[in-house]
Amino acid sequence: MLELGGRIGRSQPRGVLIAARGSSDHVAVYAKYVLGQRLGLPVALAAPSLVTIYQGHLHLEGWLTLAISQSGASPDVVSVIAVARDQGSQTVAITDRPDSDLGRAADEVIPLHVGGERSVAATGSFTASLYAVAHLCAGWEDADVEAELDLVAEHVAGALECEGRVRSLAARLADAPALVIIGRGFGFPVALEWSLKLKEVAAMSAEAFSAADYRHGPIALASSGVPVLLCDSAVSAGAELEELERELGGRGVDVYRISDAEESALQIPLGPEWLAPIPAAVPGQLLALHLARARGMDPDSPKGLRKVTETF
Amino acid sequence: MLELGGRIGRSQPRGVLIAARGSSDHVAVYAKYVLGQRLGLPVALAAPSLVTIYQGHLHLEGWLTLAISQSGASPDVVSVIAVARDQGSQTVAITDRPDSDLGRAADEVIPLHVGGERSVAATGSFTASLYAVAHLCAGWEDADVEAELDLVAEHVAGALECEGRVRSLAARLADAPALVIIGRGFGFPVALEWSLKLKEVAAMSAEAFSAADYRHGPIALASSGVPVLLCDSAVSAGAELEELERELGGRGVDVYRISDAEESALQIPLGPEWLAPIPAAVPGQLLALHLARARGMDPDSPKGLRKVTETF
Repeated sequence: MLELGGRIGRSQPRGVLIAARGSSDHVAVYAKYVLGQRLGLPVALAAPSLVTIYQGHLHLEGWLTLAISQSGASPDVVSVIAVARDQGSQTVAITDRPDSDLGRAADEVIPLHVGGERSVAATGSFTASLYAVAHLCAGWEDADVEAELDLVAEHVAGALECEGRVRSLAARLADAPALVIIGRGFGFPVALEWSLKLKEVAAMSAEAFSAADYRHGPIALASSGVPVLLCDSAVSAGAELEELERELGGRGVDVYRISDAEESALQIPLGPEWLAPIPAAVPGQLLALHLARARGMDPDSPKGLRKVTETF
Repeated sequence: MLELGGRIGRSQPRGVLIAARGSSDHVAVYAKYVLGQRLGLPVALAAPSLVTIYQGHLHLEGWLTLAISQSGASPDVVSVIAVARDQGSQTVAITDRPDSDLGRAADEVIPLHVGGERSVAATGSFTASLYAVAHLCAGWEDADVEAELDLVAEHVAGALECEGRVRSLAARLADAPALVIIGRGFGFPVALEWSLKLKEVAAMSAEAFSAADYRHGPIALASSGVPVLLCDSAVSAGAELEELERELGGRGVDVYRISDAEESALQIPLGPEWLAPIPAAVPGQLLALHLARARGMDPDSPKGLRKVTETF
């Protein structure tokens, strides 16, 4: 990936278009932050329906189009790659199935080596996809960050140690009517993924917001019955989230902060900010598991979901 | 605007970056569909924190950067325009206050002429901003669509006539624990805006999804207690939404469809698909009003919101 990233970097793409659905779409949001912050690249998240419903042709000469899909089987994501290639874009697929329709449609494939997901909700392929994007960016940037990348596995192992505290938190949240999950900056894709896991696995109404967007309207919902989880994995936004925590506390809202600070409800090791979303995803996955159990559900086979969703 | 759009079109931007918050961010999603479908332009929605928190420098030579803000006062949106201008991008602001910080920071201003919002939640400035984007696109495209643009006011007037039926719907939905709002294609920005109005004005938990993303996970939440509103303003996606309506009905979910078809729960005139979001926004605004009243709240001054939210 470092080598592929280097090659793409030398070709100086004008911009990056990303096609993805579900959890992979949150990897795309991470890519927007990491490629934007480290490389100054504008990143557009594709609306696949522009290609599949509206038969549009995007002008993508000189662009890089990236598709992210664990199964490589979602027809709309495959269509975006096929159209982008026709339009003169470089195309790269990040997938666990290099031999899938998606893998075959793209110029280059970054294989995830996860070996499949055993349950319906994506977990390992989500963190592996984040890691693939980080690696791609590092190669592109030609930065000396291999030591930082190598430490991520240790931080993920550290995050897994919070399981006991997550179980207690799940017991406290099991009867909440809904949850709000808030992140900012690099913490925003984490909040989005926590929210989706809680919906999919534990059938919990849980909407994610960036701290800034939350203040622009949804804060009107803040009520003492709906607890708020703050995914504070973005060091640079810490002060803002602390202020929000105080404000919500003043309105009688139960707020739980997840960060690497000792006074957090869940303290986990995060490492450098640009890589922090990888360990920060873990307590959300564990929370979905324990909330599902606390609510009497089977976390591996949520009702009404299939592993591969074919949207067009 | 037709003239400005024409001038921008002749300069052939490589891509469009849009900075916006709250309702204006849903106008940005509309812009992604309309500029993508009609002009084949890739559109990136800015993460303002890349500029304000991470002090990033985006490579934007040859791009168009568009800011959308009713008040023109949100510091993070102003920062994106200032940085984009420094980086060699053309900059355009769509605002109701041409003399605001935002108006002064941009190369060009498209004034909304709404004359301010009287209540906290944006309504008239939202539909006016959609209309401004449509006009900008028409000029850029140099298409002969003035007759279509002129008819929008009539469709909005027609949509306002549904108020009686919206009031009955509000009475039926007032005690729901939450709502799900679904759109697809051009209907997606409409669903996002409905969802925000219901949260802001009526303190109703209401999350919006594209029909495709909904199938990739959140459909696990579908339960008979949470009604679903289908914003079916995208003719091209009609069959898909019909199928979803049948599937949800089969699971015992109450589904209400808003479209221009006679058998809808709310029938409104929509006009051509690319302009349909403008009239389609109206029943959502009315529903927020009547739900707030049905729930004993003041729709003009929701608790805990300020008109101008200064996020950084």
